[in-house]
Amino acid sequence: MPQAPRHFPDPAHPRLTRAVEGRDHTGQMQVIRVVEERPLTIFLNAQEIVTAMTIGDYPEYLAIGFLRNQGMLLADDTVTAVEYDEDLEVVVVRTARQTSYEEKVKKKPRTSGCAVGTVFGDMMEGLEGLVLPQAELRTSWLYALARQINTAPSLYLEAGAIHGTVLCQGDQMLCYMEDVGRHNAVDKVAGYMFQHGVSGGNKILYTTGRLTSEMVIKTAQMGIPVLASRSGFTAWGVEIARQVGLTLIGRMRGQRFICLSGDDRLIRDADIATVPDEERKHRRKGAEA
Amino acid sequence: MPQAPRHFPDPAHPRLTRAVEGRDHTGQMQVIRVVEERPLTIFLNAQEIVTAMTIGDYPEYLAIGFLRNQGMLLADDTVTAVEYDEDLEVVVVRTARQTSYEEKVKKKPRTSGCAVGTVFGDMMEGLEGLVLPQAELRTSWLYALARQINTAPSLYLEAGAIHGTVLCQGDQMLCYMEDVGRHNAVDKVAGYMFQHGVSGGNKILYTTGRLTSEMVIKTAQMGIPVLASRSGFTAWGVEIARQVGLTLIGRMRGQRFICLSGDDRLIRDADIATVPDEERKHRRKGAEA
Repeated sequence: MPQAPRHFPDPAHPRLTRAVEGRDHTGQMQVIRVVEERPLTIFLNAQEIVTAMTIGDYPEYLAIGFLRNQGMLLADDTVTAVEYDEDLEVVVVRTARQTSYEEKVKKKPRTSGCAVGTVFGDMMEGLEGLVLPQAELRTSWLYALARQINTAPSLYLEAGAIHGTVLCQGDQMLCYMEDVGRHNAVDKVAGYMFQHGVSGGNKILYTTGRLTSEMVIKTAQMGIPVLASRSGFTAWGVEIARQVGLTLIGRMRGQRFICLSGDDRLIRDADIATVPDEERKHRRKGAEA
Repeated sequence: MPQAPRHFPDPAHPRLTRAVEGRDHTGQMQVIRVVEERPLTIFLNAQEIVTAMTIGDYPEYLAIGFLRNQGMLLADDTVTAVEYDEDLEVVVVRTARQTSYEEKVKKKPRTSGCAVGTVFGDMMEGLEGLVLPQAELRTSWLYALARQINTAPSLYLEAGAIHGTVLCQGDQMLCYMEDVGRHNAVDKVAGYMFQHGVSGGNKILYTTGRLTSEMVIKTAQMGIPVLASRSGFTAWGVEIARQVGLTLIGRMRGQRFICLSGDDRLIRDADIATVPDEERKHRRKGAEA
């Protein structure tokens, strides 16, 4: 398999942001860039599966990753085609295997937003018996990655109100995806891994979002043994991470972080004194949500 | 109707956070409080509607508000009972009217997380012909509310990784709800309004989350003409706010904010020089998600 391409945000892409006119606290007219948000309807073969609100880049990765993370596309499935129609805002994933998820799709019909992207009954599916590789994690990698992620040109720095998820290996960023829905950003990374045959066992996933149960479960299902975030934890997220042997790092700001799972696999090789405090302009200040 | 109770966060409540042991960047053992996250299954009469991941407080408000915001509970419905079983983590809302949302529930089955709590087709439902009252908004109220919200004891200040939504009137907080899912926090406010017959026309909704299309639509459907946030915007959120005449204030930090819809209804009565910059400890730094 050829080496997978690396992907980084493209904040200058005209389709991803829009200039909007408003007034600031002093009454001064301001033109600011805000992120787009558009529906994308995902089909698996002949079956309509979901309409997601997304920023709109990498629809193929999003569709494949969503289906993969929902267990509708299996690890050994062959994707025969991915057809994206920009005007219709539809993407169709075709597989060699015949699929029908009518029952699954009907079973638990509605979720209620953030942290509820997959429904409870299905959430634990695929976690039984899952054991992640005992991966070492160096703090020198963590600090190097945080610096790169916070300073890389991104839609976040351009327009705010967006989440990022970054697939990393050692101290290298491989695939940095952003989206208005943070689960979309993770799904796009999953689609990237599936399409390019990238395995999770020696990777690190960084997210700007909170370490909720759903985020931990998705990471584990992607076979990635380390999840790091500048944001905080939920109790159930921590519990599941410990259960499946996932290293969980949160509240990463400048030198500081907290490790709530897998500290015995953490190698504190960085000289903390050389790690600068976060510069104010790189604090993620508009992405809360 | 008697005056509605006021609700504020109860960060000391033992059911809402858990002490978890970990290690910080120096290797020092730390015990930190993290928020709980538990499933709550909502029934409308005999029909199971959804399982939401929630922090677990105010399940009755959450159930009623969710059903109301999904259009499954109508403004003139009579709720005859709300039965909550803490052990089963189930809440049943009973109405005088017979209900069956089987078709609706089957129609668009899955959403994909943040900003996708309701599906596209249904999202615009109920917006046609909606006109919000032309409500004045004083910047003195905005600054007073931001100060109160940022300094009120909250789960956010206690444990982070949580979103807040606050129903306000003038410069007063009426109902401050928090949840791991930001849409749950909004739904709890909607349930509060329904249960106590509180109308939206003279209210302000403050959210810690981003001003996405879904958040704007929910606010408009709740009849509330003003939505403010410390976080940023999406283009479609702005577009819908302008369409329905909702005043939209974002990026509120200290003295600063941007108004992208309804600036003509905004009265700049505050003396900005007297508004302090945000204190560092009140910056919401762990709630990104």
